[in-house]
Amino acid sequence: MTALDICLLQWGTYNRRMQKVMDSIKDENFNKPTVPGGNSPSWLLGHLADTDDKLLELFGIGNRLHPELEKIYHHEPGTNQNNHLSKMELTTKWKEIVGELDQAFKAMSESEWLARHTTVTEEDFKKEPHRNKLNVLLSRITHKASHLGQIAMQTK
Amino acid sequence: MTALDICLLQWGTYNRRMQKVMDSIKDENFNKPTVPGGNSPSWLLGHLADTDDKLLELFGIGNRLHPELEKIYHHEPGTNQNNHLSKMELTTKWKEIVGELDQAFKAMSESEWLARHTTVTEEDFKKEPHRNKLNVLLSRITHKASHLGQIAMQTK
Repeated sequence: MTALDICLLQWGTYNRRMQKVMDSIKDENFNKPTVPGGNSPSWLLGHLADTDDKLLELFGIGNRLHPELEKIYHHEPGTNQNNHLSKMELTTKWKEIVGELDQAFKAMSESEWLARHTTVTEEDFKKEPHRNKLNVLLSRITHKASHLGQIAMQTK
Repeated sequence: MTALDICLLQWGTYNRRMQKVMDSIKDENFNKPTVPGGNSPSWLLGHLADTDDKLLELFGIGNRLHPELEKIYHHEPGTNQNNHLSKMELTTKWKEIVGELDQAFKAMSESEWLARHTTVTEEDFKKEPHRNKLNVLLSRITHKASHLGQIAMQTK
């Protein structure tokens, strides 16, 4: 058991939690804002799927699978509440993304995790060696935890 | 830069975010539920401070500093909304707790992080070696991210 194993366990834990939210959320709540003027679970989960899909390119694994997610679940308030995927379509696409990531992660050594990701230059990485793939992974897990915490409030 | 360093960086990042929330939250919002029937930032931040304080005993560092937090910020709905500390008192106590933890963390080796915490027995740990201190730390960071995400919704 290494520190890296523990990080990957957390990644799995939060993906299982996201899956559980997708499985258990009621259809009538899926498109309802969690607070007045806030985002709906539909947007939040789409945004999380988009963020996960981007990891494929950020980590240099390959092309992202669903670039259309970025266009649907963008950050402009008002215009990003339409044309969302159905819960089933989103779940299918997200599962495919996580499957692709998990397969790549299994083959990555600790030194690969601690190497730079594709948006930091070699030169910058010398000065800021924390800008590695593992740091991005942990940031994505906490980002997911934060948004799943928001969805959990809807049922209060 | 090791995987453990990256985990500790995330711990620091989320403590800075919690500090920023404590510094920036308006007094009139501090005791206001984030959603109808939900928890207030006062309760959520008190609960996070209580959770951090418990790490001192869970990691075998020493006695917790503020056992009174557990009595104030407990989980019984209704009766746990009273007698909260002021924002300034809570901030002072939480800073003290994090200071104590950070000092201990600086001296901990990777093998200490990967050793069992105090609530798992030696026998169980042989079967479940992931029940180590680092795993608890990462769970506490995501727990903090989740509740800070909830507080962030109040201003929407």
